[in-house]
Amino acid sequence: MASQIEQTASGVEQWRDLARQLRVDSVRSSGAAGSGHPTSSMSAADLMAVLMGKYLRYDFDAPENPANDHLIFSKGHASPLLYSMYRAAGAITDDELLSFRRFESRFEGHPTPQIPWVDVATGSLGQGLPIGVGVALAGKKLEGDPYRVWVLCGDSEMAEGSMWEAFEHAAFYGLSNLTAILDMNRLGQTRETMYGHDGDAYQTMAEGFGWHAVQVDGHDLEAIDDVYRRATEETERPTVIIAKTLKGKGVSFLEDKTGFHGKPIDPDREESALEELGGKSDLTVAVAKPDPSEGRDPSHSAEVELPTYEVGETVPTRKAYGEALAAVGAREDVVALDGEVSNSTHAEEFAEAHPERYFEMFIAEQQMLAAAVGLQVRGYRAFASSFAAFLTRAYDFVRMAAISRANLRLSGSHAGVSIGEDGPSQMALEDLAMMRAVHGSTVFHPCDANQTAKLVGQMVDLDGISYIRTLRPGTPVVYGPDEEFPVGGSKTLRSSDSDDVTVVACGITVPEATKAANDLKESGVNVRVVDAYSIKPLDTEGLRAAAEATGGRVVAVEDHWPEGGLGEAVLSALAGVEGLRFEHLAVRKMPGSGSSAELLSFAGIDAEHIAEAVRRLA
Amino acid sequence: MASQIEQTASGVEQWRDLARQLRVDSVRSSGAAGSGHPTSSMSAADLMAVLMGKYLRYDFDAPENPANDHLIFSKGHASPLLYSMYRAAGAITDDELLSFRRFESRFEGHPTPQIPWVDVATGSLGQGLPIGVGVALAGKKLEGDPYRVWVLCGDSEMAEGSMWEAFEHAAFYGLSNLTAILDMNRLGQTRETMYGHDGDAYQTMAEGFGWHAVQVDGHDLEAIDDVYRRATEETERPTVIIAKTLKGKGVSFLEDKTGFHGKPIDPDREESALEELGGKSDLTVAVAKPDPSEGRDPSHSAEVELPTYEVGETVPTRKAYGEALAAVGAREDVVALDGEVSNSTHAEEFAEAHPERYFEMFIAEQQMLAAAVGLQVRGYRAFASSFAAFLTRAYDFVRMAAISRANLRLSGSHAGVSIGEDGPSQMALEDLAMMRAVHGSTVFHPCDANQTAKLVGQMVDLDGISYIRTLRPGTPVVYGPDEEFPVGGSKTLRSSDSDDVTVVACGITVPEATKAANDLKESGVNVRVVDAYSIKPLDTEGLRAAAEATGGRVVAVEDHWPEGGLGEAVLSALAGVEGLRFEHLAVRKMPGSGSSAELLSFAGIDAEHIAEAVRRLA
Repeated sequence: MASQIEQTASGVEQWRDLARQLRVDSVRSSGAAGSGHPTSSMSAADLMAVLMGKYLRYDFDAPENPANDHLIFSKGHASPLLYSMYRAAGAITDDELLSFRRFESRFEGHPTPQIPWVDVATGSLGQGLPIGVGVALAGKKLEGDPYRVWVLCGDSEMAEGSMWEAFEHAAFYGLSNLTAILDMNRLGQTRETMYGHDGDAYQTMAEGFGWHAVQVDGHDLEAIDDVYRRATEETERPTVIIAKTLKGKGVSFLEDKTGFHGKPIDPDREESALEELGGKSDLTVAVAKPDPSEGRDPSHSAEVELPTYEVGETVPTRKAYGEALAAVGAREDVVALDGEVSNSTHAEEFAEAHPERYFEMFIAEQQMLAAAVGLQVRGYRAFASSFAAFLTRAYDFVRMAAISRANLRLSGSHAGVSIGEDGPSQMALEDLAMMRAVHGSTVFHPCDANQTAKLVGQMVDLDGISYIRTLRPGTPVVYGPDEEFPVGGSKTLRSSDSDDVTVVACGITVPEATKAANDLKESGVNVRVVDAYSIKPLDTEGLRAAAEATGGRVVAVEDHWPEGGLGEAVLSALAGVEGLRFEHLAVRKMPGSGSSAELLSFAGIDAEHIAEAVRRLA
Repeated sequence: MASQIEQTASGVEQWRDLARQLRVDSVRSSGAAGSGHPTSSMSAADLMAVLMGKYLRYDFDAPENPANDHLIFSKGHASPLLYSMYRAAGAITDDELLSFRRFESRFEGHPTPQIPWVDVATGSLGQGLPIGVGVALAGKKLEGDPYRVWVLCGDSEMAEGSMWEAFEHAAFYGLSNLTAILDMNRLGQTRETMYGHDGDAYQTMAEGFGWHAVQVDGHDLEAIDDVYRRATEETERPTVIIAKTLKGKGVSFLEDKTGFHGKPIDPDREESALEELGGKSDLTVAVAKPDPSEGRDPSHSAEVELPTYEVGETVPTRKAYGEALAAVGAREDVVALDGEVSNSTHAEEFAEAHPERYFEMFIAEQQMLAAAVGLQVRGYRAFASSFAAFLTRAYDFVRMAAISRANLRLSGSHAGVSIGEDGPSQMALEDLAMMRAVHGSTVFHPCDANQTAKLVGQMVDLDGISYIRTLRPGTPVVYGPDEEFPVGGSKTLRSSDSDDVTVVACGITVPEATKAANDLKESGVNVRVVDAYSIKPLDTEGLRAAAEATGGRVVAVEDHWPEGGLGEAVLSALAGVEGLRFEHLAVRKMPGSGSSAELLSFAGIDAEHIAEAVRRLA
């Protein structure tokens, strides 16, 4: 049976055929793979059939069409269903569908943007909806509301707090262009969810958060049509459709049973399952294509004039970050988000200059990251700022953003013990390790204001995930405003023809290293001071040359735990240097409160300790 | 004025005097420090005065009393208020109070368990309530409900999804011994919160999540008394007290105004503020001491018989983890939690053997970590398991647990590309970097089942945060059941008198390295294979000896991104080894789906690639 459904003229009969095919293809593809989640796909097949058969506006030939709807599978493990929709859209062949989960197939176990119709990678639960909030923010606040965002959610993932962050923020921003479709199939991986089939529980929670919430039998096609219509008619609030479904729907020995999560159907029962479902078919749906002129992409062109600072001024790098951020905001594709600490991170400078492109994410770092990912789906260059310590809250979102091949710009302020009195809860001491261990990331840690501004200027155009770590206290401006700081470069701040030891520093330890060098010079020890502002990529060549020039004697000093930060990055760069003698100064004891100077001394990373380390080597 | 309030005979007048003193001391301590959060303390002073004056049961002379209530400041920045309560309890002197935020004072900017009456560090918002859920779980489910858990929450932190995870789980487990006191002072750090003074919004949300929710004027002492009474009378559900308060309450130029967050009062206005508040006083409160015999601490003694496996069997280390966990569960102080993936992590083995000490945390990794922290407050040895990739979701909780000096045992399964078809969203490739960069952590990555069991056996008694990384696929058992695997040790699996190259491996790369060594032996190249199962602490001495025995030629191979994992740990250990020539095999490209073997090859970390790296060095 090969026929085509016209979206405009479709009805219950067509949707039923389509849903049947989606189930059959979910079973076939996971059967061919020998793994996957057919039962989690089957529960949502009717929901997706009506969406695709009537409501979705999407040009599969032009995924870049700015008026396209966005469909995000927050329950990424229902990938067999998603890929089956692609086949039903005529976008992929049956052979491609059956390459599911094979090596080098783009149809991976969980969706990623290797597939042109996938906006973001999912598979870590609780991320698709908050990312959808970001995509909906772009549409509603920046683009004249040309598209809808549909997010298929699992009921297990409603236990993730990030889902409720999304509920809060979507309501706060009035995102009526966002529809969450909750596939309430009752069963998680090992057992019933917290709320089982209690649709009233979800409705009360969602309404409590200010959403338009409607319940539906997720296998009643006419009723599904009705709730989609109501979602599209809502103009003030986001809508959640709470759909009561059965996991494994359509196959009697699977329906509503535990023990079948994440498993293909046994090969010897697959045939009978396919028979019960109605067998393979070749329906296609002519999904309506929106007119691209209804949407708009962000404009990228503008003159940017970065702020400059006078050598000798004392300026916190976080302040320079905020001022540079406001400056790059001259570009209309630059947006900024902050976790309600914008007067600390100085993102407030952007908020004041460009209020229409600033999004307050309140104290919800996961939602902040997710919204930034959503905004970059629409082509915005998003800068998200918080205390560096609190970015740890969103590490899973950063990790997944890398799998999404996302362009993201993160700023973490209040690095290390140098923050002083607030104490260890506010001190980032693991952020370099965390951000270095992100695929394709760029990690900056500037020591002065001009350097910070130049790095922010470059971050706008960087691919992948870039991170800039800034300081709470002021540091002296040591670079002139015309100095350049390329990605993967370093700066040599002190050197002579006869240097004894290289000190590699970054951020707050740069002025400390310089002071140590000045002090040691008086006693006849020459120190080469290298400012490794680009921690990833690191200036391997420059560091090796410096190490070799100083007879292999190297001190690395950082305001960070010893693991995974500057010191280990330097060791990786210097592996194989002849006669390497290495001292690593880092924070090795749990700090408390105190002044910046007291804590730098306590941690053994101030000028005095650097000088001692140099003397041990020289 | 120095007088003592008896809790039993106290009333509005006494509470008013006490609240006044708490405000005065909050202003004085932050004034003396020159930093801190007096206004966030003043809003909650009346709430804490009535709690302390009538409801709290706590023996300040015996913080270890198992029947003591637990008071957690989830809004840790209100530390001036907390420390002022300690002075009012007679537990600290005025001088100690005024050491607030000074170097080496235990009265840090945010509370930590350096103070004997503080259970856990707070200061990263949204953590105190989910940790309180863990403490309340212990009391309610394991100890006969001898105490109450009181958690002072800020309204800004209600934006954190982790708070709603706590709401879900506390309701699910019926924690009527838990009271959240929401200091709804309307103002965050820079602006009004999402809900401002809309108490109905919070009440609707909380009731939607199944809580007993009551609103109160947070400055009406009699009304506060009434809602505390109602909280203590509730027997089925947790209670949230939504208290409408004013930030900076009591000082006319601060009350309900923005611009004063996190700032002491200007020195030139401090005197007038103190005057308006009524000036310094020396009230103390005789807080009621519970009878220790009403509580009980967990019993630590039991015979543990670890599972054993036959050499040559193929067993996934995650399975051995689960079986060993069930075995150590013979000790009644061992508890286990899992994020609804217990049939993947194999924590289900524990759940089946000891259902009364297994806590299902559903897909809420932050709450899982927080509950584990709460359980260890009460002396339990908590093992929390999930996919290693998903522990990234809870990194901020792990970071804060280290500041809490918590004893925690984490298990992350499904490490690296070896998981195969599920794809990168499920692959932990940053977990070693993340867990190494935790102060005082221990990081294990076993390669076989007997090793896993022995390491789990040791984890029970380890201090600090320990982490074990397990594998999805089966690996051959290579160690006999009597072999020992000390913390900080390593095992040499292949060696001879004339080894050419050392290969350092862990987990899945151990069998690959062994295979490479076997293959190379035939072509006359002798490889020393070191199994670095203890990645932190690493066997520095053993590795240096191996490197020196093989002329400085070392290959490190790991199923992890290149940053922050085994390779960099090995480089740190080998810094200074003469003539070091180092090759680092790690995952450097974004993987997709495929078989375990295909992906190990794709990543360049299988036997063939190890052999090539050895040949390059040999």
